[in-house]
Amino acid sequence: MNYPLLRGIDSPADLRRLPRADLVKLAGELRAYVLDTLSNSKVGGHLGSNLGTVELTVALHYVFNTPHDRLVWDVGHQTYPHKVLTGRRDQLGTIRHLGGISGFPRRDESEYDTFGTGHSSTSISAAHGMAMAAKIKGEDRKAVAIIGDGAMTAGMAFEALNNAGVPHGGLMGDLLVILNDNDMSISPPVGALNKYLARLMSGSFYSAAREGAKSVLKNTPLYEFARRFEEHTKGMVVPGTIFEEFGFNYVGPIDGHDLDALIPTLENLRDKKGPQFLHVVTKKGQGYKLAEADPVKYHAAPGKFDPAVGFVKSAAPAKPTFTQIFGDWLCDMAEQDTRLVGITPAMREGSGMVEFHKRFPSRYQDVGIAEQHAVTVAAGLACEGLKPVVAIYSTFLQRAYDQLIHDVALQDLPVLFALDRAGLVGADGATHAGNYDIAFTRCVPKMAVLTPADENECRQALFTGFQHQGPVTVRYPRGAGAGVEVQKQMQALPWGKGEIRRESGQPQGRAGSPRIAILAFGTLLYPALAAAEQLDATVANMRFVKPLDQELVLELARSHDGLVTIEDGCLMGGAGSAVLECLQAAGLQTPVLTLGLPDEFIEHGDVPSLMSQCGLDAAGIEQSILKRFGGRPALLRSAANE
Amino acid sequence: MNYPLLRGIDSPADLRRLPRADLVKLAGELRAYVLDTLSNSKVGGHLGSNLGTVELTVALHYVFNTPHDRLVWDVGHQTYPHKVLTGRRDQLGTIRHLGGISGFPRRDESEYDTFGTGHSSTSISAAHGMAMAAKIKGEDRKAVAIIGDGAMTAGMAFEALNNAGVPHGGLMGDLLVILNDNDMSISPPVGALNKYLARLMSGSFYSAAREGAKSVLKNTPLYEFARRFEEHTKGMVVPGTIFEEFGFNYVGPIDGHDLDALIPTLENLRDKKGPQFLHVVTKKGQGYKLAEADPVKYHAAPGKFDPAVGFVKSAAPAKPTFTQIFGDWLCDMAEQDTRLVGITPAMREGSGMVEFHKRFPSRYQDVGIAEQHAVTVAAGLACEGLKPVVAIYSTFLQRAYDQLIHDVALQDLPVLFALDRAGLVGADGATHAGNYDIAFTRCVPKMAVLTPADENECRQALFTGFQHQGPVTVRYPRGAGAGVEVQKQMQALPWGKGEIRRESGQPQGRAGSPRIAILAFGTLLYPALAAAEQLDATVANMRFVKPLDQELVLELARSHDGLVTIEDGCLMGGAGSAVLECLQAAGLQTPVLTLGLPDEFIEHGDVPSLMSQCGLDAAGIEQSILKRFGGRPALLRSAANE
Repeated sequence: MNYPLLRGIDSPADLRRLPRADLVKLAGELRAYVLDTLSNSKVGGHLGSNLGTVELTVALHYVFNTPHDRLVWDVGHQTYPHKVLTGRRDQLGTIRHLGGISGFPRRDESEYDTFGTGHSSTSISAAHGMAMAAKIKGEDRKAVAIIGDGAMTAGMAFEALNNAGVPHGGLMGDLLVILNDNDMSISPPVGALNKYLARLMSGSFYSAAREGAKSVLKNTPLYEFARRFEEHTKGMVVPGTIFEEFGFNYVGPIDGHDLDALIPTLENLRDKKGPQFLHVVTKKGQGYKLAEADPVKYHAAPGKFDPAVGFVKSAAPAKPTFTQIFGDWLCDMAEQDTRLVGITPAMREGSGMVEFHKRFPSRYQDVGIAEQHAVTVAAGLACEGLKPVVAIYSTFLQRAYDQLIHDVALQDLPVLFALDRAGLVGADGATHAGNYDIAFTRCVPKMAVLTPADENECRQALFTGFQHQGPVTVRYPRGAGAGVEVQKQMQALPWGKGEIRRESGQPQGRAGSPRIAILAFGTLLYPALAAAEQLDATVANMRFVKPLDQELVLELARSHDGLVTIEDGCLMGGAGSAVLECLQAAGLQTPVLTLGLPDEFIEHGDVPSLMSQCGLDAAGIEQSILKRFGGRPALLRSAANE
Repeated sequence: MNYPLLRGIDSPADLRRLPRADLVKLAGELRAYVLDTLSNSKVGGHLGSNLGTVELTVALHYVFNTPHDRLVWDVGHQTYPHKVLTGRRDQLGTIRHLGGISGFPRRDESEYDTFGTGHSSTSISAAHGMAMAAKIKGEDRKAVAIIGDGAMTAGMAFEALNNAGVPHGGLMGDLLVILNDNDMSISPPVGALNKYLARLMSGSFYSAAREGAKSVLKNTPLYEFARRFEEHTKGMVVPGTIFEEFGFNYVGPIDGHDLDALIPTLENLRDKKGPQFLHVVTKKGQGYKLAEADPVKYHAAPGKFDPAVGFVKSAAPAKPTFTQIFGDWLCDMAEQDTRLVGITPAMREGSGMVEFHKRFPSRYQDVGIAEQHAVTVAAGLACEGLKPVVAIYSTFLQRAYDQLIHDVALQDLPVLFALDRAGLVGADGATHAGNYDIAFTRCVPKMAVLTPADENECRQALFTGFQHQGPVTVRYPRGAGAGVEVQKQMQALPWGKGEIRRESGQPQGRAGSPRIAILAFGTLLYPALAAAEQLDATVANMRFVKPLDQELVLELARSHDGLVTIEDGCLMGGAGSAVLECLQAAGLQTPVLTLGLPDEFIEHGDVPSLMSQCGLDAAGIEQSILKRFGGRPALLRSAANE
C-alpha cells in the first residue's frame, strides 16, 4: 500500500493542517498501516486495541494542541497509531524489538509521550497531577487521560476520580477523562462496573425513566404533561451517572469510530473548564473482521501473520511454557483438593487459567484489574480453610505488596502465589520487568520463596507450596524452560532443601585453579550447568530462596574456594544477598560472586539477547567466574580431566 | 464505676441473653468503661472512633451469631468495644502495652477477631472472601464488613464493591457492608465521595426529587397524582445510590447511635441473601462532649488524662519529633522554592503538615486514603517541572509500591518521599511496622535511600533529597531523636557520602582485640557510638543506603579486622546486605556482623523495650560485637587506654 496521506504526516501539526474531509481517509490508512506493519513484525505486539483507537487518536491530535496539551494513554499498549502520528511512523516496524521503539509510551522516546504507562489505571492520577501543575504554574493547558473500561475497574482509577472531582486549595484542574469503552480488557469483562457501563451504553438508563412514566400515564390524557415532566426531572432529579457523582461533567456515550461525533464533542469539551468525562464506545479490532470477531484471541499478535488468514496456531509447539505447566497443575490439583480456589486479576488467558475456569467455575474468581483486592480475597478465603492460589505476574504483584505483607504474611495464611513472568520479560520491557520479586518478597517474615529450575520442578514446587501452611511464592519466567519432561505424579520437594546437580572434580585450595561451587536459583541452573562443564565447577540447584538451605550453603562454602550465586532477579537484595547474609551470620569468609540482573531498568528486546547482555548465558557466566576467581578455562579443564 | 451489666458479659452469648430493654444501659456502661480505661492508660490509644462505635458493636453482636457469623472491622482501631464484649474486658487496660492485647483485631488473639486489620480499606475484600468461602463450602454464614467513610476513599474498597456485587461461577456471597459514616477519617474529609455521602445523609438526594415535582405541579390540581407518581418513580427511575449501581441493596442512612433503628434494620438485613449495604451515621467521640467537639484532636488519646479536663498539652516537649522536623523543613523549603508541592494520603496531622496546609493551601494536596493515587499524582506533577514531596509512613508506602517503581523510578522523576514511622513504631505494632522499606526501595533502580541519624541531619537530608534530580526516600523513625540542635541554614549533604564519627585507637590485626568499624545507617548511630566507646571501635555515619559510599566501606574494610552494620530495618536485604554486596563485588573478605531487625513480625510495645529485645540498644550492640569478634570488653577498654 501507498498511504498517500499518512506519508505526509510527520507530526500532529501536519495532521491539523489537513482538511476535515480527509480525516476519514487518513484514519483508514492509519489502520491499514498498523495492521500491515504488525503482521510483518517478527515479535508481534498489541493488535486489537490499536485498531480500536485509530479514530480517537486522529481526533485527539486534531482537536488538542499536542504536545502542549497532554495526552496520557492508560496502559499504553494502544498507542501505536499515536506513535505513527507523532513522528515515529517509519519506526513502527521496530516496535518491541531490541533497540527499536517501545510498545508503550515513554517520556524519553518522544515529547508526545507525556507519561510512561504499561501497568493499568494510572492515567487519571498522572493527568490530574499535570492538570494541577498547570493551575499551580498559571499555565493554560489541558490534560487528557484515555482509559479503558477494564482499567477503570482498578481502585486507583476511583481514587483519582474521587480526588480530581473536587478543588484543591481553590484550584481545579482542567482534566478530561475519556473512557474508551470496548467492553473488555484482555480477558472478557467482569464486575459490576462493567454491567453498569453496558446499561449506560444501551441507553436503558434513561429509557427506564420513560417506561416508568408511560406505565403510570397509560390511558390518561396527561401524556404531554408527562413528557414535559419527564424532561424536567431527567435533568434535575435523576442523579446522573456515577461519574457525575464524582464531580465530573459526563458526556456520552458516543461512537468512538465516528469522527463526525468525536471531533465536535472533543472541541466542545476542550473549551470547558474543570473535570470533564467523555464516554466513548469503540470496538477492539475495529476494521479487521477477524479481530472484531474474536477480540480475546486478537488482543496481541504473536508475530508474523497473513492478515487474510489471521493467526494460525503453530504446528506443534516444541515445549510447553511455564504458564501451561501452571495451568495443568492447577487443574490436577483442583481435582485432588476441593479446597483449591484459583484467583486472577484479569489475566485468565495470560496466566493459563482458561481450562481451570471451564472445569471449576465455582472455584474460579476473576476479580478484574484489581490486584489489591485479589490478594485480600485470597486471605479471606484462607481464613475459612480454603486454599487460594493467586496467579499473578511478578510485576503486578508489586501492586498488591501491602496486601501480601499485611493481609497474608502477617496472619501467616496459606496463600500460594504463582508468579508468572518472573525475571526478564522480553518485548514488553522495563514496565513489565519481573526483576524485583525475590528482593521484595524475601524481606517479608513468614514468606517462603521458591525458584524452580525447570518445568517438572515448577509443577512439583507448586505442589510443595500448596501443601505448605503459610504464604509461598513460586516464581517462574515467561516462555518455555529447559524442556524437562513433566511427571504427572506430584511429589513434595524437601522443604528448604537444595540439591547438588554436579560435583567438581577439582581439589580445594590449589593455586590458580580454584574449586568453585555455583548456587543456582531458578531456571539459570541450565546455563550454569553448561558453564560448570567448562570450569569443572560444582553446581547446586537451590530451589528455595527462603527458607534458604543454610546447611548446603555452609557445606559448599567450606568445601570450595569460591561460591557463585546466580538468579534471574535483581542483585540488590536478591538470592545472592541471602547467601551472603547466611555466610556472614555463620562467620565464614568464602569469597562469593553474585550474578543476576544489574541495578538498572532493562530495555525491551528478545530474552536471549538481553540475558547475554547481562552476562547470564553460559559464556557470560563462565567469563565472570574466570574474571573473579582467576584460573584459565584450559587449566581448569585439564584439571577436570586428571 | 461499677458497670453492673458489663460485668456480666463474658462473651456475645451473654449479651444475646440480655433483654432488649437493657441494651441502652449496657451501651452506656460500655462507653464509660472504654473512656475510663483509656484515660487511665499510660500508652493511650484510639478514642473517638471507639466511642463512636459502641451502639453499632452492641447491635452487631446482639443480632449476628458471632463468631459463626464473621465481623471484619476495617482499620480495626475502633474495636475496643468489640474486644470488651468478646471476653477481653479485663484486659482492655493492657491494650497496646508490651505483652498486652493489641490495638487492632488479631486472629491469634480471639476467635471473634476474624481478620487482622490495621491498614485501611481491606475489610470488604476479606469479608467477600469469607462470604464466597461459605458458599463454596455450602455453609450458611454471614460476613459483615464495617468500614468508615474515610476508608471508603481507597480504591481497594471500590475494587471489592465492584467484585462482590456480581456472582462468581453462579455463587453470590451473603455479604453485608456497613458504611460507618462519621464524616471523617483521621484528618478532615476530602474528595468527591465525601460530598456525595453528605448529600445522601442530608436526604437532599430524594428531596430534590420532591422539590422538582412540586415546582412543576405548583398551583395545579394534580398534587395527589404527583405524590403517587413521585413514589412510583422513586423506586423505579431514580437509579439510587452508587452502591446500588455496584449491585448492592442499599439501606440507610440510619442513626448509628439509635439501637431501636440499628437492631431491627440489622435483623432485616441478616435475613436477606446476596450483597447488602447499610449506611450508618455515627459521630466520632459520641457521648464525650470534648471529643465530639474536636474529633481530630480526640482521634487518639496520647496517654493518661482527666476526662473532665480533656487532653492538655504537656508543658514543654523536651525534644521535637522527626515529624515536626519534617513539617518545619517543608514550610521553609516551600518558602524558598515555589515548585514544591506537598502531598499526603489523609495524614495531615500525623505527617506534620498542618502548618504547611495553612500557609501554602494551593500547593497542598490531601488525596484521601489513596496511597497509589498520591504517588502517581506526584509523578504527574514532577513531569511538569514541579517538585513534589510525598509525606507517607513507611508502612503505607507498601500500598504504592508499584507506583513508586513504575510511575516514579522508571521515569527517573524527582519525587521526594518523606518516610515517617520508619523502623519500629511501638504501640501500633506489627501492622504498622516500618521495617521493610530499606529492602524494598533499594532494590529499585534509580532510587536513592537516605537514612539521617538525627534531627539536624534529617533536615539536611530532606534538603539534599529535594535538590536531587531523581527519586529519593528520606526515612526517619517515630518520635524524637538524639536531640541534636537543628540548624536553620540548609546545606546539602555530600551525595552518597558517609562520615567518620569516631576513630578506633586499636591497631589492626592484634590477636584477641580486633579493630572494629561500625557502619551505622540512621538513628541507631547514637547507641552505636555508645557501644563504640566501650569497645574502642570506629564509627561511620553512613547517611546513604543508596548510593552506598562504597569508597568508605572498602576503606574501612581494609583498615579494620571486622565491620558491623546497624540499621532499624529488616536484616533481610537491608543496608547490611548492601555492605555485603559491596565487599563481595570488590573481592574483600573482611568479616561483617549485620545488626538490625530480625525476620519476624515484631509485637507492639514501647520502642526502647523492643529495641532492647532486638539487641539494638548500646548494651546489645556491644554484646553482639563481642560475641562475634571475640575479645573482652575490659581488654578492649584497656587497649583503648594505652
